[in-house]
Parts: sequence; structure tokens; C-alpha cells
Amino acid sequence: MSSVRPVFLVIGLFVAVLGIAMLIPAAFDLFAEGDRAQDSFNAFLASSLICVVLGGGMSVSTWGRIETITTRQGFVITTLSWVALVLAAAVPLTIGNGGLSLTDGIFESMSALTTTGSTVVTGLESRPPGFLVWRSMLQWFGGIGVIIMAIAILPFLSVGGMQLFRLESSDKSDKIMPGADDLAAAVFNLYLVLTAACFFSYWIVGMSAFDAFNHAMTTVATGGFSTKDSSFAYFVGDPDMAGPADLVAVVFMILGALPFTLYLLALRGNLNALLFDSQVRFFMLAVLGFTAVVAFRIMASLGFDGMTAVRLALFNIVSIITGTGYASANYGAWGPFALGIFFVVMFLGGCAGSTSCGLKIFRFQVAISALIVYTQKLSHPHRTTVARYNGRPLDEGVFRSVLSFFFIYFMTFATTAVGLSLFSLDPVTALSAAGTAIANVGPGLGDVVGPAGNFASLPGGAKWILCLAMLLGRLELLTVMVLFLPSFWVR
Amino acid sequence: MSSVRPVFLVIGLFVAVLGIAMLIPAAFDLFAEGDRAQDSFNAFLASSLICVVLGGGMSVSTWGRIETITTRQGFVITTLSWVALVLAAAVPLTIGNGGLSLTDGIFESMSALTTTGSTVVTGLESRPPGFLVWRSMLQWFGGIGVIIMAIAILPFLSVGGMQLFRLESSDKSDKIMPGADDLAAAVFNLYLVLTAACFFSYWIVGMSAFDAFNHAMTTVATGGFSTKDSSFAYFVGDPDMAGPADLVAVVFMILGALPFTLYLLALRGNLNALLFDSQVRFFMLAVLGFTAVVAFRIMASLGFDGMTAVRLALFNIVSIITGTGYASANYGAWGPFALGIFFVVMFLGGCAGSTSCGLKIFRFQVAISALIVYTQKLSHPHRTTVARYNGRPLDEGVFRSVLSFFFIYFMTFATTAVGLSLFSLDPVTALSAAGTAIANVGPGLGDVVGPAGNFASLPGGAKWILCLAMLLGRLELLTVMVLFLPSFWVR
Ligand SMILES: [K+]
Ligand SMILES: [K+]
Repeated sequence: MSSVRPVFLVIGLFVAVLGIAMLIPAAFDLFAEGDRAQDSFNAFLASSLICVVLGGGMSVSTWGRIETITTRQGFVITTLSWVALVLAAAVPLTIGNGGLSLTDGIFESMSALTTTGSTVVTGLESRPPGFLVWRSMLQWFGGIGVIIMAIAILPFLSVGGMQLFRLESSDKSDKIMPGADDLAAAVFNLYLVLTAACFFSYWIVGMSAFDAFNHAMTTVATGGFSTKDSSFAYFVGDPDMAGPADLVAVVFMILGALPFTLYLLALRGNLNALLFDSQVRFFMLAVLGFTAVVAFRIMASLGFDGMTAVRLALFNIVSIITGTGYASANYGAWGPFALGIFFVVMFLGGCAGSTSCGLKIFRFQVAISALIVYTQKLSHPHRTTVARYNGRPLDEGVFRSVLSFFFIYFMTFATTAVGLSLFSLDPVTALSAAGTAIANVGPGLGDVVGPAGNFASLPGGAKWILCLAMLLGRLELLTVMVLFLPSFWVR
Repeated sequence: MSSVRPVFLVIGLFVAVLGIAMLIPAAFDLFAEGDRAQDSFNAFLASSLICVVLGGGMSVSTWGRIETITTRQGFVITTLSWVALVLAAAVPLTIGNGGLSLTDGIFESMSALTTTGSTVVTGLESRPPGFLVWRSMLQWFGGIGVIIMAIAILPFLSVGGMQLFRLESSDKSDKIMPGADDLAAAVFNLYLVLTAACFFSYWIVGMSAFDAFNHAMTTVATGGFSTKDSSFAYFVGDPDMAGPADLVAVVFMILGALPFTLYLLALRGNLNALLFDSQVRFFMLAVLGFTAVVAFRIMASLGFDGMTAVRLALFNIVSIITGTGYASANYGAWGPFALGIFFVVMFLGGCAGSTSCGLKIFRFQVAISALIVYTQKLSHPHRTTVARYNGRPLDEGVFRSVLSFFFIYFMTFATTAVGLSLFSLDPVTALSAAGTAIANVGPGLGDVVGPAGNFASLPGGAKWILCLAMLLGRLELLTVMVLFLPSFWVR
């Protein structure tokens, strides 16, 4: 690596900005009453100071114009930035009175920034407001970070088939924005507007302004942190609500899981780009299909009436497929078949270029195309079939990127699950915790880590394994793994 | 398909030969005492007649010289032959007094011929000898069928990377035999010799001739059917045994899981071909590594002494990795970590060109090569790395075959597991039954289908799903799936 200067400069800036952002939860605590809020205020103020000084110092001492960023610097900056931000964001969660243990603080911070939403915190209702706001804000930051990474960075690093989403500036009809800076700004504005719309919708259906603020951030980011221990079951069961908060959540979870660049195209008049996008259509079909199957199953086997079954199935399928992870019911009790469906849906994920996670819809589309092309070759070796994706021909490069992504994904999943079983977790807990961490979904299955459980009771070693899995999943595995190849460091 | 004549001719011949083979279990029953043996004798005699007449008629009416077999005929013949043989082999298991139900008979027959070894039969010790011999013989036939398929058919059908094992007749140094007929004959003779050696070894360490005969057939075929309900735990626990039957089994299970063509090369003086084969070495390392890990774990957590731990771990790891499926202990009680290891090992499998099953060692080697090559490309897009396998360069065609094989394998596994969960099986049973069926291993995990359980109690629908999964797994999935592509049937 010829120069580490840009790496330190970028990371320093990120940490300093995060430090400034800590003043927001501090402000919430300042206006709240009680000792816990006072402790929390102190923690955020001190953390803010630490991060601004450390991050600011790092960026000032490496200040200067960045001419170009090489591919290899891109990998290093991406991975190290996430790690540095997770550590910095954990500071206010761990220091002072009422702080979490180091392991729990880093787990919660990693879970928040990667928009996973698995939590080790219990008694959310009694926590100071700043603490809750900070968790939600971290998911919101993570969400926009993921979108910008997926639009501006991963396509150029060609990770796992993401080169399909490279914006070709030579192709006029496809060009949305003159430069990556403008594109990032436009996406950020859109993200702000969506979050505001989500906030007002939650508020109108009867959430308190505080709950609406928190849930708006964690919904659009498909993060899944809540201010209530019982997650959305609280709002669904509250007779004082003016409207269906769960249906509002469904709308905004889906909006958070669609490709954000297509919204920009739609806003510029090209609505068809959104409506006829192959990934969007496949995603919508998957949502409807799985909802229908689960609704039918719980109607037939648990005796729910039709409306209730559809509403429960829709909310929880959307929550899992988008990788949000809210729960409006303990679907752990819906029987093995529904559990099986949830386990599969967990891996599916939303669309590339959104805040959602998992393997992502386009990878399944590409892999299925590859499989059809290759299988046709078996019986007709000399025939050439060209597969297309959204009109573009799919080349061998994309096929191999996507197929090898599936391979490394399942190997990582299996390794994580076996690693967890070292801590004597039962198979359902180990498998679903590994899956939910790598797919950044949030809740797993079973009594321990399921929708009615909590990750707090896991052994420390298991939490560290899950931290690593969340990071790997969020950065599409290879962005991190490439750093461990000796050849990466050879010029 | 221009001509179905060769298809019927081959299948008819197979069925007729199987009918003749039914006289062997009939002979065992003839010399046994009791009504059950008499019933069983009648069943085998009648079935033999049926199969000889039907199969013979089919082949006589389509008799004639087969000039060439096209690739597409190859797929049809391979799949339909297995299905026809499974149906024919089920006849004596189901007809007459004491026969199994139709579902159970076909399950047992499929499990036998695919060398899976999952059983729905309880009370093995009280079954007539012909019934037991027939189950063992079917596994033995299945084993040689798989080897010949892997040497002579699949490489030419290019299924899942098997083109790596195409014998290039132009390449003198690699050429083993002038033609496929001679090669098949040589492999068959070798298989016979190995089985005989296994029989005498079992006999010498103290098994009865009958048990040695049965277990020799199911060991070399890595099939796993036993004559005892408690499988190898019976022989390990029997104080009258003169020697360690489990260690004999370890040797012959490993011999059954190595590539048979390499034995022929070794017999012709090229011992290095066997000793330095990359697949063989990787397999041996996997066996030793997993044995060490499990032995260490059960020593530490269950307090076994060193020798016992190593012996138990070795036997059961070899049994699962080779896909045999004997059990010398209920490893279900060895804790979650050991279970996790067994679950992973189940998918590994032995070497291509052997009787064993699973994903097979070479596919992991190729996929790891592909992953390294592609990941290097991420950081150094313009550098070209050539990966090699046993000295031969690996081309894109092999990479994509193998990677798409992994994809379809995991999709099939997930679909099977979800399908099983429709019948309200618990997650561990559904996941492990799906895995054990596709990988043709035999026992699963958990109380129902684990080493101490039995498949008899599963619902009928679940048994049919498992039958399909066993067939798909044994025929390397694509051999069957290609038949369901509409383009297959277009000239
Ligand atoms: K989430
Ligand atoms: K087996």
C-alpha cells in the first residue's frame, strides 16, 4: 500500500462526525429527568469529546487533497471505517454509570451500525431517552452508509456480482448523475425525506413523537431496533392507537428494501425504471408468495381468521425478508413449516442498492440464470445461450462472482454455526443466530434468540463470533476477506 | 429423442439381471427354518419371475446392436435405469406375507440402491436371512453402479465438474484401459476382491459368516445397512469378538471412498498416482483433522479416556465422511459441537470415482481454487492466475460447473428441509434428514432419525420427499434435473 494517508484521513473524519452526532442523544438526556438520564448525558458528552478529539486529530494530521483512491485502498478504507465507527459508537454505550460491558457494548454497536438489530439490552422502556435515540441513530447511519457503499463503492470493487450495478457514465440513457458526490447527496436527501414521511405516518397512527422518531429511523434503515422490549407487538396490541402502525411499517420497510437509485430515476420521470425493474418485481413476488403461504398455513393450523392471518404473515414476512427484524407476534410458535419458511426468507434479503441485507434478490436471479444456461449446455454442448438481466447480457464474470459468493456465504454460515455450537448452544439457536447475523436480520429462531428472546444470555465468545459475522455479512464478505489474502498486500 | 430403443433395451437388461440376482436371497431363505423364511422365499421366487419376464421381454423386444449413445440418451438412460431398478428391487420387499407397505418398500429399496442406508425396518435380528441379504446386495449393486457411473458416464455428461475425470485416450500416460468396457470389468473385479478381503477380515475378528457377508457388502459400498438394529455398537460391545470389527470397518470404508481408477493405476505399478493424488490427500487430512477435533472434544467434555475417544471419533467420523452411516455409539449425545461437526462432515463426502457420496472432496478443492482466483482478481484485476488440479489447469468451465453445483445442492437441501417441515418434523430432524438423504449418508441427527432412531415413524409424505432427495443426491442432481428443462427435449 503506497499511502495510508487517505485511509487515516477518511476514518478520522468519520469518527469526528460521529462524535458530533453524539450531541443529539446528549440533548435528549439533558431534557429528561432522573439520575439515569443525567448519567447518560455525561456519557454522551464525554464520548463526543473523545471522538471529536481523536477523529479530528487523525484527520487534521493527515489533511490534504486526495487525488485518487486505488481499488486496494478502497477495500482497506471500507473495512477499517466500519470497524472504527463500531468502536467509536460503542464508547457512550459502555462508559459511565449504567454502561454495558465491553462485549455487550461492542455487540450492540455492531448490531446497530450493520443494521442487524439483534440486541443484548433488556428493559428498553426504562432506559434513558438518549440511549434509545443513539441506538436508532446508529441504525439510520448504517442504513445510509450501506446504500452509498452499494451505489458508489462495491460496484467498482466488483464484489459478489455488484459490478452489475456499475453506473456507466458513457451510457447516457443510464446516467443519473454527473458524479458520485452528487449522487450520494441526492440519495441522502431522499433518505431524509423517506424518514420524515415515516415519522409523520407513525405519529398520525398514534405513536408518541419519541417512538415515531426512533422507529422511523430504524424502519427506513431496515434496522429493527425498537423502544419497546416487545417490539411491534406493543403497538399492535395497544387499544389507544389511532391506526395500524404495523401496516405503516410494512410500507416503509418495503421502501427501504428497494434500490434507491431507481427512486431517483422515478423522480426524474422514468417511473418505468422502478416498476419494470426485474429485481423489484421478483422481490414483490417473493413477498406476496411467502405471505400467502404463511397466511394460509397459520389459518389452517392455528385457526386465525383470514384478515388476522394475512396481516400477521405480511408484517413478519416483510420484516424478515427486508432484514428489518421487527416482530408483531412470536412466530416461533407458528409451527415447523412457518419456521422453515422464515429461515429461508432470512437469507433472501431485499434488493441491491437498498438498506436491506441477506444474499439479495439479484444474486438469486443471476444464479438461476447461470444454472439454466449451464444445464442447457449439458444436453446441447454446442448451443450458446445468452442470459440477460434487466436487458443487459450477463457475462461469465458476473456468473462466477455471484456463484462464488453463494459458496463463500454458505461456508461462512456453516463455520459460524459450528463455531457457535462450541459454546453448547442448541442447534436451532446456533443455526439461526449464525444466519441472522450474516444476513443482518436481527432475531433468530428458538427460545433464546427468537423474536421473544434476547441475545444477552449468550456466552461472551458467541457474541464475538456473531460480531464478526455481522461485519462480514454487511460488507458482503469478500470486502473483508480479501484483506486476508497474502497476495492482496503484494503490489 | 430420436430413438428410445436403446433406453428400453438397457433398462430391460438391468431389470432381468436383478431378477436373476433375487435367486441368491431365495437360496438363503430356502435353507433357513421357520414360516417367515418360507414366506420370504416365496416372495423372492415370485419377484424373480416377474422381473425376469418383464425385463427380459423388454430387452428381447428391443434387441439389436446399439451403435452410439447420444449425450441426451445418456441422461435418460441413467435416470430411468435407477428408477426402474429401485421399483424392481422393491417388489420382493413388499409382496407376500411379512412384506413392507408400498411406501416403506420403495423407501427401503431407494435407500439401499443409492447406498444411503436410512432404514424403515425395525427388528432386523428377527427378519429372514434372504430379506437381510437382499438389502445388503442392493447396496453392493448400488456401490458398483455408482463407481461405473462416475468413471464411464458422468465425466462425459460434464455433470457438476465431473469432466475433470474424463479419461483422455489421447493422453498415453493417463490412459488406463483401451476401452470403457475393459475399464468397467477391471473395476468390477477389484470391487469383488475388496469385498472378499473385507468378508475374511470381518470373519477373522469374530463375526459370523452371515454377518461378515452382509457387512462386507455394505462396507465396501459405503452403504451402511447392518444386520443388527444397533449397527456396529453390537459388535463393539460383544465380548466374544476376537478382534476390533470397528477398525476393520474403518479400513474398508476408507478404501471404498477413494477413487477406484487410482487403485488400477497402483496395481499397474504407479503407486504414486494414489499416494500423491490431491483429492486423496485432502480426504485423508479431513479424516484425521475431524477425528482429532471430535476426539479432543469428547475427551474434554465427556471424560472418555484417550484411546476410547480416538477410536469412537475415528469410526464415526469415517462412517459419516465416507457416507457409510454405521454407528458405533449414539453420537447424538456428544453435545452440540460434535453434532455440528457431524452435520458439516455429512456434506463433505469422499472422493469422486468411489462408492461414497456427498458433495465430494474435489468439488471443495475446485471451489476453493475458484474463490482464491476470483478474490485475487478483486485487488489485482489485470493479473491472471492459473489454478491447477493434480497438475491439470482448471478452466472456467470446471469452475462454473462446480460452483453452480454447490448452488443447486444447497437450494435442493433447503427446499427438501422446508418440504419435510410441512409434516411438522422438528427443525433438527427436518434439516438432518434432508441432508442425510441428499448426501446419501444414512442416519441423521436428533431422536427421530439420529443414529439411535429409525425412519419408520416419519409420515408417508416425508418418506416420498426423502426418496426423491436420495435419487437426486445419488445422480448428482443435474442428471435428473436436466430432464425437466423444456430445452432438453428440443433437438
Ligand atoms: K435488521
Ligand atoms: K450410506
